[in-house]
Amino acid sequence: MLTLAELAKRLDAELVGDADQRVDGLGTIQSATGSQLTFLANPRYRSYLENTRAAAVLIPESQREFCPVAALVVKDPYLSFARATAFFETAPLATPGIHPSAVVDPSASIAKSASVGPNAVIDADVTVGEGAVVMANAVVGAGSVIGDQCRIWPNVTIYHGVTLGPRTIIHANCVIGGDGFGFAFNGAGWTKVHQVGGVSIGADVEIGAGTTVDRGAIEDTVIGDGVILDNQIQVAHNVVIGNHTAVAGKAGIAGSAKIGSYCLIGGAAGVAGHIEVCDKVQILAMSLVSSSITEPGTYGSALPVDTQARYRKNVARFRNLDELARRVRKLERLSD
Amino acid sequence: MLTLAELAKRLDAELVGDADQRVDGLGTIQSATGSQLTFLANPRYRSYLENTRAAAVLIPESQREFCPVAALVVKDPYLSFARATAFFETAPLATPGIHPSAVVDPSASIAKSASVGPNAVIDADVTVGEGAVVMANAVVGAGSVIGDQCRIWPNVTIYHGVTLGPRTIIHANCVIGGDGFGFAFNGAGWTKVHQVGGVSIGADVEIGAGTTVDRGAIEDTVIGDGVILDNQIQVAHNVVIGNHTAVAGKAGIAGSAKIGSYCLIGGAAGVAGHIEVCDKVQILAMSLVSSSITEPGTYGSALPVDTQARYRKNVARFRNLDELARRVRKLERLSD
Amino acid sequence: MLTLAELAKRLDAELVGDADQRVDGLGTIQSATGSQLTFLANPRYRSYLENTRAAAVLIPESQREFCPVAALVVKDPYLSFARATAFFETAPLATPGIHPSAVVDPSASIAKSASVGPNAVIDADVTVGEGAVVMANAVVGAGSVIGDQCRIWPNVTIYHGVTLGPRTIIHANCVIGGDGFGFAFNGAGWTKVHQVGGVSIGADVEIGAGTTVDRGAIEDTVIGDGVILDNQIQVAHNVVIGNHTAVAGKAGIAGSAKIGSYCLIGGAAGVAGHIEVCDKVQILAMSLVSSSITEPGTYGSALPVDTQARYRKNVARFRNLDELARRVRKLERLSD
Repeated sequence: MLTLAELAKRLDAELVGDADQRVDGLGTIQSATGSQLTFLANPRYRSYLENTRAAAVLIPESQREFCPVAALVVKDPYLSFARATAFFETAPLATPGIHPSAVVDPSASIAKSASVGPNAVIDADVTVGEGAVVMANAVVGAGSVIGDQCRIWPNVTIYHGVTLGPRTIIHANCVIGGDGFGFAFNGAGWTKVHQVGGVSIGADVEIGAGTTVDRGAIEDTVIGDGVILDNQIQVAHNVVIGNHTAVAGKAGIAGSAKIGSYCLIGGAAGVAGHIEVCDKVQILAMSLVSSSITEPGTYGSALPVDTQARYRKNVARFRNLDELARRVRKLERLSD
Repeated sequence: MLTLAELAKRLDAELVGDADQRVDGLGTIQSATGSQLTFLANPRYRSYLENTRAAAVLIPESQREFCPVAALVVKDPYLSFARATAFFETAPLATPGIHPSAVVDPSASIAKSASVGPNAVIDADVTVGEGAVVMANAVVGAGSVIGDQCRIWPNVTIYHGVTLGPRTIIHANCVIGGDGFGFAFNGAGWTKVHQVGGVSIGADVEIGAGTTVDRGAIEDTVIGDGVILDNQIQVAHNVVIGNHTAVAGKAGIAGSAKIGSYCLIGGAAGVAGHIEVCDKVQILAMSLVSSSITEPGTYGSALPVDTQARYRKNVARFRNLDELARRVRKLERLSD
Repeated sequence: MLTLAELAKRLDAELVGDADQRVDGLGTIQSATGSQLTFLANPRYRSYLENTRAAAVLIPESQREFCPVAALVVKDPYLSFARATAFFETAPLATPGIHPSAVVDPSASIAKSASVGPNAVIDADVTVGEGAVVMANAVVGAGSVIGDQCRIWPNVTIYHGVTLGPRTIIHANCVIGGDGFGFAFNGAGWTKVHQVGGVSIGADVEIGAGTTVDRGAIEDTVIGDGVILDNQIQVAHNVVIGNHTAVAGKAGIAGSAKIGSYCLIGGAAGVAGHIEVCDKVQILAMSLVSSSITEPGTYGSALPVDTQARYRKNVARFRNLDELARRVRKLERLSD
């Protein structure tokens, strides 16, 4: 529970309205109640502003005159709202200490302010930093390092030889450090290439539920500082992802691919192995990057749906597209 | 073990054959043994009927004369077979009670007929309903509600603030209620939008292994009654899925998309964020829905494989398809 | 720590260099230190050879003269390197025995040399073979069989009625034996087809993190000997995968599809249900196999990315491709 005065101070906002009004949560501009904070960022939602019943609206200077309730005037309302969400987080706080049901190897070093949850398992020589939280039923393999203030959600598996920088969040059921997919064909079948590299993850990284990041074959797989990965992403062995790159859900990045900084990789997009994508590249959803990209910009390849009738006809034509192009060339020659 | 008379009664079928014949399991029409029940639904399999050795066949009226063994005549053999499978389920029954190795917060309310398995972890203020089963190593976060007769398979993670309606089944290693992928760019990196909404899942829902359903940013992510989700589906924050919609494996539904009722979403299909798909829409496998669909019907976009030689040629032509179309337009002008 | 003489002997290599030189690890040709082994397989890396500081290089006969350090001359350097990686595996060895925190049903049969890790749960009538390892927080369902020398990584869920052949490896958070996606439409919603088949996995199989293999509807889902599956693959009910087939990350194989032996299925590729793919077929990444393939060879369908401007124009043209082809036909008729 915060007053508008306190919110304005924390968010560096100009308050227009009752400084003592209390706020106990967040709402959308359409449905916020009289004790909730909301924001107006997208002009699309401007029509909702006049009827909002929110306690206050984070709003840009240009819209303040239209706000029927208290206004918190800021430069970037969505960014200010993001900051405000931290004050109303509903996730329970962790209690420092090791739950009696956790199994912690005596050689592990667990900071006093860290929390190890029920039935979590911490293997030999692991380090868990100050304020870090390893939640219920998570497993941390030998020698791995969980940085200060990290949060490892339940049922995560971290293999041996993984390092997480401070404040990194790993959501539930992720696997960090599983074996890369390395095999040599031996004439009759596959001989495993044991994966002796590790995984190095930077500071302030967030990894969504069910994402897998494989350990390196020889050297480490590397995820830079401030990278955000959504759910169910596959990061193969020896991938390098640059700082502050964002990857949307279900994307896959094949072995040894190198992605630059400040990239935006769309949902279910694929990046082929052994290629490089430079900084500030945006890949649209479900697109395939099969060769290196050296120029910043936006790239795509996925076809959007059409009605089944048109889709089937166009697909049939695609199968003969090369022939169609040759026929056009022939017509051009005839018309010359 | 059931007699054919009992089966006929339970399935509301007309029995042609020995009422006392016992059935102890299920088989395919090709390989069922003399004590197994099978069915004939797809006319493709008609040729197998004459040689079947099954104890009995669930069969439509039109085929009864061709059945060489006992017949259970029904309107919809596959639906009757589905009902029959419940009598032969092989999954072990759960024992009511809390396993001594489970860690259950004293504030949680666990029904007497519920079962909490070994090493499961139940956090504060959770409700587990009558007959519900939380299996081994599953984790249920603070304040979540597991409805009556729900079944939570092992290693599932349910975050705080998730509600499941009665008889809902969550298969192993699902994550329900992980943080949605919400971040605001702050000029140098990403500021997290803490996700304070929850997840609301209806009655009679089934969710396949490894699927992730994110919690809402502000309001809940909503999955309607009778929805069936296959494995490894990603449902992003604030998605709404209407009643009785079916989604096949590996599909992804981006943030705030709204899917209607009685839709069929194909395997690995993608639905973009902030769009609406109306009721009774079928999306073919691996297709991309990038804008709203307002008419029921079937839609697709994925290209099927071709030989590498033809594929490479056609792809090369696709890269110049716009130019090709312009060249055709030019030829048309010349021929006018 | 091995000497070059020992390595040469184990790898059946010809040693050119100091037999007593000790090797304590693996490195890439660019960065290996003076006590590490490396290899030269890809001619692309030939330029790095002259500056390598490795203790020794696994090298083909044709390149031995260019090796500035000790050479281990072999026929297939990558295969020999794969074999060598086993000597330097960094994964901790498991201790035989059942951890006191594990919950093992009294009817389960656990070999004396097997290891059951902390908080693992083993249900009734399970068999765990000699030297097999069930790691922390993994769950094995009733009646399942874990073959000799298998390794089940943490947080894996194996349902009831699953059989693993010897030496099979299941990486973390996999789900083997979850219910197939079988439902019959009952006019108002979906009636579950209870999945009473099991899963049969052969010998020497490796399954990557987060992969799901569903149990069969009536008969088993079958994965042959020596199959290698990468991370986050979905194998639906009653799929059959032939021996030594390799499937890359995020691929999906729909129900009752039958894949031959020695196939290579690319990342995020999709195989439709009820079709057959013959032996020795390679499917390129993100491609859709929607009908049976009867000839060995390479097949693909995914479009690679283009700049957004070109992509948007070409996609717009694709929507009218059938019409374009008709217009070309009309021009051809005019020019006849």
